[in-house]
Amino acid sequence: MINYKIIFNILGLLLVIEGIFMLLSSVVSLIYNEPDLSALLLSSLITIFFGGFTWFFTRDAQKNIEKREAYIIVSLVWIIFSFFGSLPFILSGSIPSFTNAFFETISGFTTTGASILNDIEALPHGLLFWRSITQWMGGMGIIVMSLAILPILGIGGMQLFVAEVPGPSPNKLHPRIKETAKRLWGIYILFTCAEAILLFFGGMDFFDSVCHSFTTMATGGYTTKQASIGFYNSAYIQYVVIFFMFLAGTNFTLSYFALSGKFNKILKNEEFRYYTGFILGFAILVTIVLVLTANYTVENSFRNALFQVVSLITTTGFVTADYLSWVPFLGIFALILMFFGGSAGSTGGSIKIVRIVLLLKNSYLELKRLIHPNAVIPVRLNHHSVAPQIIMNVLAFIVFYLLIFIFGVMIMTMLGLDMDSSIGSVAATLGNIGPGIGSVGPMENYYHIPEFGKWFLSFLMLMGRLELFTVLILFSPAFWRK
Amino acid sequence: MINYKIIFNILGLLLVIEGIFMLLSSVVSLIYNEPDLSALLLSSLITIFFGGFTWFFTRDAQKNIEKREAYIIVSLVWIIFSFFGSLPFILSGSIPSFTNAFFETISGFTTTGASILNDIEALPHGLLFWRSITQWMGGMGIIVMSLAILPILGIGGMQLFVAEVPGPSPNKLHPRIKETAKRLWGIYILFTCAEAILLFFGGMDFFDSVCHSFTTMATGGYTTKQASIGFYNSAYIQYVVIFFMFLAGTNFTLSYFALSGKFNKILKNEEFRYYTGFILGFAILVTIVLVLTANYTVENSFRNALFQVVSLITTTGFVTADYLSWVPFLGIFALILMFFGGSAGSTGGSIKIVRIVLLLKNSYLELKRLIHPNAVIPVRLNHHSVAPQIIMNVLAFIVFYLLIFIFGVMIMTMLGLDMDSSIGSVAATLGNIGPGIGSVGPMENYYHIPEFGKWFLSFLMLMGRLELFTVLILFSPAFWRK
Repeated sequence: MINYKIIFNILGLLLVIEGIFMLLSSVVSLIYNEPDLSALLLSSLITIFFGGFTWFFTRDAQKNIEKREAYIIVSLVWIIFSFFGSLPFILSGSIPSFTNAFFETISGFTTTGASILNDIEALPHGLLFWRSITQWMGGMGIIVMSLAILPILGIGGMQLFVAEVPGPSPNKLHPRIKETAKRLWGIYILFTCAEAILLFFGGMDFFDSVCHSFTTMATGGYTTKQASIGFYNSAYIQYVVIFFMFLAGTNFTLSYFALSGKFNKILKNEEFRYYTGFILGFAILVTIVLVLTANYTVENSFRNALFQVVSLITTTGFVTADYLSWVPFLGIFALILMFFGGSAGSTGGSIKIVRIVLLLKNSYLELKRLIHPNAVIPVRLNHHSVAPQIIMNVLAFIVFYLLIFIFGVMIMTMLGLDMDSSIGSVAATLGNIGPGIGSVGPMENYYHIPEFGKWFLSFLMLMGRLELFTVLILFSPAFWRK
Repeated sequence: MINYKIIFNILGLLLVIEGIFMLLSSVVSLIYNEPDLSALLLSSLITIFFGGFTWFFTRDAQKNIEKREAYIIVSLVWIIFSFFGSLPFILSGSIPSFTNAFFETISGFTTTGASILNDIEALPHGLLFWRSITQWMGGMGIIVMSLAILPILGIGGMQLFVAEVPGPSPNKLHPRIKETAKRLWGIYILFTCAEAILLFFGGMDFFDSVCHSFTTMATGGYTTKQASIGFYNSAYIQYVVIFFMFLAGTNFTLSYFALSGKFNKILKNEEFRYYTGFILGFAILVTIVLVLTANYTVENSFRNALFQVVSLITTTGFVTADYLSWVPFLGIFALILMFFGGSAGSTGGSIKIVRIVLLLKNSYLELKRLIHPNAVIPVRLNHHSVAPQIIMNVLAFIVFYLLIFIFGVMIMTMLGLDMDSSIGSVAATLGNIGPGIGSVGPMENYYHIPEFGKWFLSFLMLMGRLELFTVLILFSPAFWRK
């Protein structure tokens, strides 16, 4: 039997927390003395009361949370948060359509950053703050989910990639979440503060510094400026953002080790080495192409190249330049980068570096296996051989990812989008990036997508954010039997 | 030690056979009394002499052909055939550029059908015949390769899919090839004759009937008309071609069973059931979309839909209508169909239905495995469970296919092609289809592709045709050690 009472109990409690963050946003509104105050306050009260009541009337729930309850909670929380989170946009009249408001909010909580706003800067400060904080909260959720919950559920090989997470009880959900949250949220908050301070000292407005730090650490990509980071014509600011996007795309456990002085653990981590290697290699490649084909200086080429590569690989989605105005090769390259994703255990979405690495290694070894059909040739990661079931798991994940991508592209073309825009919108939402290619490129937004398309893309954001299987499993009849 | 002598010996013998087919083409030239006679005769003599000498001077080779020799022969024969096969085009002056002539010829032998000819109908009959016969020979090679050689090499799960091939010695290369060739080439020739007769009775010119039959049975797609099968405004002719494309995309072992009256073996074959099901399902879908969006009658919609679906799924590449002028959804759908491929053991290229089916089944079961982590849940095909190594092999094949596809698209964009054309040209050559999307769409050709791009696409045709691993393995250092 599924323990629905505990599900409601936890969701209620989490809603209260969401309401408190809304309340915080209304303080911003109060400071700027802007008309969105009442909408934020009202939304906050609705959310807190609704959550509080749900929590109160289920407080006698048995505290046993098994795998199935975990799956349901994880999937529902993102949806319910987006539902209540869209209230401030609707009640203030800033985004009158429910579809658009929901899209904007789930794009926030899933740290995607795909926007339907045609004029971001027209939004009052309270709503901009709320919009940024949805991503920051989403990032917090992802850290706990990917480092504490998914490994226990055994999704997509996660148990392997994050095996090194410190914590006293690796197989009990409750204490594990508590320990992970305590240690890693501390780092998350620390990095956010550090970035905000560095941006502020670089001349960015205090409000914008905070908002951009929220969305950088979440690899979200929401910005307070229509031109994204390209608004700031400062090399310093862009390098700061690059550095923190890079950190946000790194396994937070590694950051924990770094802050504890255990640097050898970081250098020995293969995913981190590949992550760094891919970024540098790709940035140099793009730099060379830009120097040869675009009208940039070398430093400008390098900075734009590095910024775009880091932003896309980590699935942040900030932009400093319209990569679609570069040569076609760089457009397709941008698209391919959208399938990498950050490291496992980071706030980045998409496939993730470690899976790509295992995929490539296994493919290469398959050639060896063909030559020596009777030899057992395991894939090795961090000097350990990886169990075949994990490899199967990883391959299945990637296959599902691509199948959903193809299916999504078909749906979007059916809605009348051209090929580039269909490919771009699906890749950028499923991978939680934000800007795509075609008519949802870095200089465009998702406003023009048909109603049904927005709901479909919202679903893709959720699927991508929850490592596919968490959502897919709910559609499997076997899940509900027992 | 690799037995190079036997490699040369066999290649020499095969070249003589190629030369004899050229000689046959020069007879056509003689009949039509056209100026390409001397070029065909000369090419034929060069090929026969070169092959004959090679064969003669290596006739004392030891007859042991092991796996490694098989890999090398299989890869080399397609390249060498294309080299000599391009002579008639060059010597006659019809295709003066060596790059273009080689591209046209390897596109023939790999049964791809991607052409650089801007005016097919300007070619004399002898050369048109030779062009068609390269595909027919390619088809013969593929049947033997996929049903007799690759299963022994264990490539891409082939040992499983074609396990039912009749033959006295399933593990010895030489007698197995002989038996397979005898039985299945008989069927291949029979079908070719049947189609030619049916087309001729439908009002097609005798010469064109023969040429189109050659290229249908090879799922090649070379045609003697600029407008492909669209030239024939006859429902009868189009349905005949559809029927034989369908046969060509069916496992030839199944056709063997059908002709032996063992129909239950066919109905029990899962790949065949899916192959038929996919075709019917997709054709109905496309029909509905066409009825709703295009200016066709229902019958015309159905015929165009079925023709295009069968042509693309079997990787033939004939066209009756410009699918790129249909709604964008059908354009992307055409692209997706290019990744299906015919059945294993057919002359079709690309991924192949059975691999797609195993991929989908395994993906679905992965969800079940997540719910019951300790249960062993094997994939089943034809009522037997499939060994995990085979599944891994199939997944590795598909992953390689997609990696090569992505890498190829990047190369083509680097050469300056736009995104659609890059995607289209790589999908259509790697999958041995022919016409793609974008500037290599069904109404266009490959003439405008840059020189390097033509060599690269030629390489992709070879890779695709030889089930990737046969070629890839030659690049692996482990292959050359021992």
